[in-house]
Amino acid sequence: MAPGKKGILERLNAGEVVIGDGGFVFALEKRGYVKAGPWTPEASVTHPEAVRQLHREFLRAGSNVMQTFTFYASDDKLENRGQNLRLSGAQINEAACDLAREVASEGDAMVAGGVCQTPSYLSCKSEIEVKAIFKKQLEVFMKKNVDFLIAEYFEHVEEAVWAVEVLKETGKPVAASMCIGPDGDMHGVSPGECAVRLVKAGAQIVGVNCHFDPMTCVKTVKMMKEGVEKAGLKAHYMVQPLAYHTPDCNCQGFIDLPEFPFGLEPRILSRWDMHKYAREAFNAGIRFIGGCCGFEPYHIRAVAEELGPERGFLPAASEKHGNWGAGLEMHTKPWVRARARRDYWENLKPASGRPQCPSMSAPDGWGVTKGHTDLMQQKEATSQDQLKQLFDRSKSH
Amino acid sequence: MAPGKKGILERLNAGEVVIGDGGFVFALEKRGYVKAGPWTPEASVTHPEAVRQLHREFLRAGSNVMQTFTFYASDDKLENRGQNLRLSGAQINEAACDLAREVASEGDAMVAGGVCQTPSYLSCKSEIEVKAIFKKQLEVFMKKNVDFLIAEYFEHVEEAVWAVEVLKETGKPVAASMCIGPDGDMHGVSPGECAVRLVKAGAQIVGVNCHFDPMTCVKTVKMMKEGVEKAGLKAHYMVQPLAYHTPDCNCQGFIDLPEFPFGLEPRILSRWDMHKYAREAFNAGIRFIGGCCGFEPYHIRAVAEELGPERGFLPAASEKHGNWGAGLEMHTKPWVRARARRDYWENLKPASGRPQCPSMSAPDGWGVTKGHTDLMQQKEATSQDQLKQLFDRSKSH
Amino acid sequence: MAPGKKGILERLNAGEVVIGDGGFVFALEKRGYVKAGPWTPEASVTHPEAVRQLHREFLRAGSNVMQTFTFYASDDKLENRGQNLRLSGAQINEAACDLAREVASEGDAMVAGGVCQTPSYLSCKSEIEVKAIFKKQLEVFMKKNVDFLIAEYFEHVEEAVWAVEVLKETGKPVAASMCIGPDGDMHGVSPGECAVRLVKAGAQIVGVNCHFDPMTCVKTVKMMKEGVEKAGLKAHYMVQPLAYHTPDCNCQGFIDLPEFPFGLEPRILSRWDMHKYAREAFNAGIRFIGGCCGFEPYHIRAVAEELGPERGFLPAASEKHGNWGAGLEMHTKPWVRARARRDYWENLKPASGRPQCPSMSAPDGWGVTKGHTDLMQQKEATSQDQLKQLFDRSKSH
Amino acid sequence: MAPGKKGILERLNAGEVVIGDGGFVFALEKRGYVKAGPWTPEASVTHPEAVRQLHREFLRAGSNVMQTFTFYASDDKLENRGQNLRLSGAQINEAACDLAREVASEGDAMVAGGVCQTPSYLSCKSEIEVKAIFKKQLEVFMKKNVDFLIAEYFEHVEEAVWAVEVLKETGKPVAASMCIGPDGDMHGVSPGECAVRLVKAGAQIVGVNCHFDPMTCVKTVKMMKEGVEKAGLKAHYMVQPLAYHTPDCNCQGFIDLPEFPFGLEPRILSRWDMHKYAREAFNAGIRFIGGCCGFEPYHIRAVAEELGPERGFLPAASEKHGNWGAGLEMHTKPWVRARARRDYWENLKPASGRPQCPSMSAPDGWGVTKGHTDLMQQKEATSQDQLKQLFDRSKSH
Repeated sequence: MAPGKKGILERLNAGEVVIGDGGFVFALEKRGYVKAGPWTPEASVTHPEAVRQLHREFLRAGSNVMQTFTFYASDDKLENRGQNLRLSGAQINEAACDLAREVASEGDAMVAGGVCQTPSYLSCKSEIEVKAIFKKQLEVFMKKNVDFLIAEYFEHVEEAVWAVEVLKETGKPVAASMCIGPDGDMHGVSPGECAVRLVKAGAQIVGVNCHFDPMTCVKTVKMMKEGVEKAGLKAHYMVQPLAYHTPDCNCQGFIDLPEFPFGLEPRILSRWDMHKYAREAFNAGIRFIGGCCGFEPYHIRAVAEELGPERGFLPAASEKHGNWGAGLEMHTKPWVRARARRDYWENLKPASGRPQCPSMSAPDGWGVTKGHTDLMQQKEATSQDQLKQLFDRSKSH
Repeated sequence: MAPGKKGILERLNAGEVVIGDGGFVFALEKRGYVKAGPWTPEASVTHPEAVRQLHREFLRAGSNVMQTFTFYASDDKLENRGQNLRLSGAQINEAACDLAREVASEGDAMVAGGVCQTPSYLSCKSEIEVKAIFKKQLEVFMKKNVDFLIAEYFEHVEEAVWAVEVLKETGKPVAASMCIGPDGDMHGVSPGECAVRLVKAGAQIVGVNCHFDPMTCVKTVKMMKEGVEKAGLKAHYMVQPLAYHTPDCNCQGFIDLPEFPFGLEPRILSRWDMHKYAREAFNAGIRFIGGCCGFEPYHIRAVAEELGPERGFLPAASEKHGNWGAGLEMHTKPWVRARARRDYWENLKPASGRPQCPSMSAPDGWGVTKGHTDLMQQKEATSQDQLKQLFDRSKSH
Repeated sequence: MAPGKKGILERLNAGEVVIGDGGFVFALEKRGYVKAGPWTPEASVTHPEAVRQLHREFLRAGSNVMQTFTFYASDDKLENRGQNLRLSGAQINEAACDLAREVASEGDAMVAGGVCQTPSYLSCKSEIEVKAIFKKQLEVFMKKNVDFLIAEYFEHVEEAVWAVEVLKETGKPVAASMCIGPDGDMHGVSPGECAVRLVKAGAQIVGVNCHFDPMTCVKTVKMMKEGVEKAGLKAHYMVQPLAYHTPDCNCQGFIDLPEFPFGLEPRILSRWDMHKYAREAFNAGIRFIGGCCGFEPYHIRAVAEELGPERGFLPAASEKHGNWGAGLEMHTKPWVRARARRDYWENLKPASGRPQCPSMSAPDGWGVTKGHTDLMQQKEATSQDQLKQLFDRSKSH
Repeated sequence: MAPGKKGILERLNAGEVVIGDGGFVFALEKRGYVKAGPWTPEASVTHPEAVRQLHREFLRAGSNVMQTFTFYASDDKLENRGQNLRLSGAQINEAACDLAREVASEGDAMVAGGVCQTPSYLSCKSEIEVKAIFKKQLEVFMKKNVDFLIAEYFEHVEEAVWAVEVLKETGKPVAASMCIGPDGDMHGVSPGECAVRLVKAGAQIVGVNCHFDPMTCVKTVKMMKEGVEKAGLKAHYMVQPLAYHTPDCNCQGFIDLPEFPFGLEPRILSRWDMHKYAREAFNAGIRFIGGCCGFEPYHIRAVAEELGPERGFLPAASEKHGNWGAGLEMHTKPWVRARARRDYWENLKPASGRPQCPSMSAPDGWGVTKGHTDLMQQKEATSQDQLKQLFDRSKSH
């Protein structure tokens, strides 16, 4: 941490709002630097200027956290996904740390090193093997001296707990974030119970990221908070949802929507949806508020603008953004000028321009209508072995 | 033009497809560098790295044209819009030219200098005064030796003709692009007639940009082509539409939709919509195919991928994009892997995830249901003077 | 005509509004007395109580015209559609006349005998043969002394003119109504030109029925009116549209929508939509205002209520209907009572409750996007004979 | 019961499917005989032919139950709703019984006398007073010797139990049906618990009617069945839902939707939706399957056709209805003939034709997002008395 800069716990303990960043994988896919499917983050090495620029945009938008662009950068994942540049996870992770630190230094931001769920767990490797994966990634984060650690995007609380246990050993603050909704993890462990286990394992911050839209994620974190408080424990809370509306998801989130990942456009949240999200998250007692897949810099800016009164300042990028559409005041058409006001945008129900499209989809995959507990019964598999295999495969992203 | 690089007319005369870039104003607004409302382009001076990066992404996506980021950079506009950095149009335009040239040199791209409609015209200044504005911008383009010129975003063919006449004097190739739909310009001059006048004024390339969705724009350019051919003239054709679905527009385009400019998300075209657009444009005989507001790099990449067979190669960014979703083949869930095929994405009707929103809006402003010829009758104005004033104001962006 | 009752022309000449009835075929299909597909009207013989009751409901709702339930009751149609009760057209037509007269006598209504397009025309029978069909139906109408005659549901103006010529010979007032939209008849004859030919053939009233929604039909009749007036002729105008919203129709109307005829429910107009229709029709100068397929008695009641001020009275059924929802004033819940007002219902955008359904469909069949003039080119037929046959078949309902 | 006809319990005990009728109040409102708001059933006296005809249509459609048209015909309700014909409840109820019996005799149907929730309960009258109301209605049913009794449309299980206790005394079979969804009655008593109390009070048949769409109602009855079975009790089950899609309801059902009652058209179920409903209800073990508000005769016919294989016969009205659209086989257009098949209609997602309307609404009134338990907290009432009053009023239809 640069001298004079406050750490994550220092901020949260002081009751400050910490604003996260948005989703690098999806944003860089659209910019041409990440391949959908494998989703691996080699761009930190191959196109550092693109990764740096995105960090900068989030910083300008108000982010206090630069997450190292290391999603799926464990060696088992990189092999698995055919990343064929002969780049090791370590190379990628180091480059990612450097970029995050470089930009964090340009403003009031911390660097967070992240690990996420592993193919090793999903193929039933042992606790020791899985933890070894995390440790390997962690070496880089320690060498590069990140400011805190995030274990994120876990569908199974068991693996998330293992990750926290590994991260904990470093002495750095640890945040743990699962990609679950109100129905809980893939084995049906409730959000409250997941949170309790993570806090007991040593996470100081718990919450959810990805897989569901903002309101669903806030609702899930509220359930986590209730669980933690009921258990007589204490924690800080974080939320980093999708920037897509997903009212039609089943328990496995947006992966199972037929639009994933190349037809999600009509679901993208507007900046005004983000105002509602930021307020709802704040009111729920969540203080680490960011985004995941679909979040562009202007979405984070909207979060920072909504919480401007609480934080006492606006982000740098607000110099290029009028409050609640105020920039339209100088538009030449009177009826467009009339849109330069809060209640106009707050109440707008934006049209899709797609009259031949529905407003909701039926999710794909297993457990569509019944939820995870019925997964087994729904398949006509001939042996328990096959069933197990199918189930295991179903557990991964 | 760099030695060995072909010019715009050389390419078009040879029957090549020339791919344009996307809309800088909207893309940079989301990234935090342009203010919606004034929409002025001072970022080339204040944040060159952001403008450079966006140029690069479009280049990687397949663009052969780097348009200088000089939209609304005429001095009358800059003053009008309260751009208060005390930057002159010349400073901004020079910086923009340098950035476009720098990135164009990194690949197979040309630099195009652009002028667009002026507040001076809309406030009824004389032909001489309006032309003086264009000439002033042109000085920079000539000094920086751009490869060709585009007069774009004109609602009135009269002003577009004036612009072409000025640009013509340079000896550079001239493209002329209006922001009109099938109903023609704001005085009801048909697309065919507009095109004829522009060709007669000296434009070698004519077409439309902005204001309407791809299919509407292609339809309009087809009407231009019919007009030009019927008049026994010859031209090349260009199209640079919105990346928003706008089936509910009236004659003044997306400006009048209630979602403009901050609630357009549900209308964003998917990459698959772009494939359809590129094919339709190609089939219509259009060979300069690009984008305007809403186009992100991946939209241009989709255009380049659809026309890969005709062009004989794919853009650089396709190294990070599987053909028709092929990247999903290595997804862990079988039902997501099943989406790695063309007919899946071609036939998907993506849901909005917004069940309380409609699929079409009623346009705002004048002429909603009746079109421009009724503008006058629709207002209860008390004097002809007031009417004229209102009408003049209504003519601008 | 009963003594003291005014005839259709007497009413229209006096500037009165004449309210038509709704669609028997669709209403009786839902009640269980007509078979969708053949659509034949034998129920007048087999279940007279059902037909009588529907007449009564329309009379109570405000209808001044009891159309004999004789749609598709020409002998060629009855044979064609497999009506296997061994009932002759004459038997059915006589029974229908008696029922219409019986109910008309109970209130202020006239009996109208109707003929419509014939299979004979569509299979290219001669003018003499087609006219013979009309004459046979007409015998019954003259024997039963109907008050006036309607030639309705014609897609081809040529056949409609033949029908008018036959009906004219009786000396009864003749109304001619085509099932066309703004694109004109199936050979592309414009609405204005169709109307001129029908008036010249002797029709005193011209207009459209079926196939399109109310606003489209009113627009089409306006085009007819403009044509007639431009030709220096005079006529009265009628409109009897669908009670279904059909913004997505092509030139052949709702038959080509994928929802026809068993999935049209989400398109049904509300009573408030009917208020708008009635007002629009009245403002367009149309004075014979009724309905066709989809119209239920409450739809006609809404027309009569909207035009109550002009007519000076409300229909009998309004004793069971509060003005603009006024009946809700005595509802027990305050928020339902708050709906007892005009602006609430006028501005309501009713939800479909079907989030997985689109708001528009793509029409089926030929000419979907291009219109009737391209019918020929669109089919890969191997001979001109086959083409002709296909085209002829395509012309029928 | 006519000699040779089987009673309701005899049928259900034998495992037969008993088909109910549809909603008279809504159907007769559209036909012009019931006033929305008061909803009182005086038409049995004033327009018996209309009531008789509707009974006949349901009989033809397959109904085995003719419910006397006596909804809201208790004296306290009639007074309350301003029914000003000076008809007593007894007069209306007697006429209704006669009509139901007359039509039931024409086919294989039973007559069911019905009572429903009273204003007296909602205004906190005593058990004795409320039961007196039921007893008064019952006198007529006994005098007219109905075949069985239904206590239906109860929002509060307490009042439903009182009704069952009164009806029980007659020795007639008793069915009890509440207008609740999965959240239970207005005090939060779960469906399972409601059913247990009703069975213990003596109802042989339990279930739900009105307020929610078919799938929601079937789900609720399943919860009732689980409750009854878990309690070691036995019962038969009935379901008579709305014919409107209501996925956006809160706990108080369609009354709170902004479209109630005059804008529900886009929500009307198609006949194919009814096939799915009938199958789902049958699969859930429900054997008394009918409809409530919105059900027209063709909806009941669809239920009877879906369950034709189980019942071994089709209803009379099926002579006018081809199986799964088979009647279209003789349509003249080939693409319409192509719709004469089951999978076409089963998979159709019908468009609303209303692109400016949403697919879901936000319910009005209290408890919109939170459910009944929060009713109290949501209102800023100044005294407990006011709160109680508001709550009590909120409890009624």
